[in-house]
Amino acid sequence: MNVLAIDTSGPVAGCAVLSDGKIAHLVAMNQGLTHSETIMPAVDAALSASGLACGEIDVFAAVAGPGSFTGVRIGVCAAKGLAHAVDKPCAAVDALETLAMNFYGFDGLCCPILDARRGQVYCAAFDMKNGLPERVLADGAMALSDFLALLPEDRRLAFAGDGVPAHGAAVKAALGERALIAPENLRDIRADAAALLAACRPETWVAAKQLTPIYLRAPQAERERARKLGGKPNPEAGA
Amino acid sequence: MNVLAIDTSGPVAGCAVLSDGKIAHLVAMNQGLTHSETIMPAVDAALSASGLACGEIDVFAAVAGPGSFTGVRIGVCAAKGLAHAVDKPCAAVDALETLAMNFYGFDGLCCPILDARRGQVYCAAFDMKNGLPERVLADGAMALSDFLALLPEDRRLAFAGDGVPAHGAAVKAALGERALIAPENLRDIRADAAALLAACRPETWVAAKQLTPIYLRAPQAERERARKLGGKPNPEAGA
Repeated sequence: MNVLAIDTSGPVAGCAVLSDGKIAHLVAMNQGLTHSETIMPAVDAALSASGLACGEIDVFAAVAGPGSFTGVRIGVCAAKGLAHAVDKPCAAVDALETLAMNFYGFDGLCCPILDARRGQVYCAAFDMKNGLPERVLADGAMALSDFLALLPEDRRLAFAGDGVPAHGAAVKAALGERALIAPENLRDIRADAAALLAACRPETWVAAKQLTPIYLRAPQAERERARKLGGKPNPEAGA
Repeated sequence: MNVLAIDTSGPVAGCAVLSDGKIAHLVAMNQGLTHSETIMPAVDAALSASGLACGEIDVFAAVAGPGSFTGVRIGVCAAKGLAHAVDKPCAAVDALETLAMNFYGFDGLCCPILDARRGQVYCAAFDMKNGLPERVLADGAMALSDFLALLPEDRRLAFAGDGVPAHGAAVKAALGERALIAPENLRDIRADAAALLAACRPETWVAAKQLTPIYLRAPQAERERARKLGGKPNPEAGA
């Protein structure tokens, strides 16, 4: 089985090819370039280096959120486009769960935090002690302090994700030795982990046109429109 | 500080740029291509994508072994050549320690195993509970069973490295639940981990011409010559 995974959901743009259970190619780019410009050349290079044509990919996975609204759309649309062209399925992979894959076998909980702006983090918690992530808390968008209050007091906690640079110090101040902050090599989403998650869950594969982003909040434009109209954002319109 | 790290010591060819503490670029290629053909274009792409010229790199790191004799030489020579050209230092990074970086915060020992041919593995053990690897066993080349006999019985053990496909089943059979086998996304050496190790140890930096491979055994040609002559391999000649 061949899986192509794309991630543009945050500051890193990544692409990976998983071929017959082996990670044949992985690239991760964090240079502040526009993901819409960098991701397709990266996909092209990954396929070419893996000796695979687009039609030989069995499923196109995208890290579908939570994350940057624009970033998530770029990755989801790239995966949809590629899959549609060769009539193959897509898989939406959760950004927070993909991050948890960096802490396989950790005896505590992995607590990914992503920068959600507006003083919030996208967050979740996964029990890692049996290997693959076992979800303990659903994906949420909340203030860091609210998230920390939800976490158990008797477990070690590993924090990863693009929320670490802004919030890592606050996490350590609140939790002390119980909190581990991921080093740089385990801090970011890696597309190979997304490919592995997609590969082990064929029941989540959908037709290309059915692939949708994972949004936990309405986009800013929606929220502002709703505020002006005094109503609630319409989840159908923009998200 | 900018670090360029190169790894061609095993089946994966990798390159990473660490720029001001951020992993700006990472690529890992495992397509059975000749590392000598793939690594320099990958270095070129990594520098170009990171917006850095060779002269802006502060240290050139190479995963210097243990590993494939030819692979190690390719990576070491590439790093030496680049560093020499711009008069910057090099850093030799241990392959087994680089692998251990994949298990930051793991409560047990990380036990990397690399295929050393001749029925042996290159192996070591690192205590990970405080974050960065703390060495427990020196790098060695031995039969898997001899390595397993050296490991403590009261700790969880995580196995990673290119020795896993051949030896993972034997490890599980011998150690049962106590042994974790790294999933594919944490199984291989990643050049970003090598860049981090080089960055945090400036005391290991050497002049380009002083960078040498980490060999635990004499190369096969040496061993065969020694066998024919009835003597011992000359470590100066080929290694």
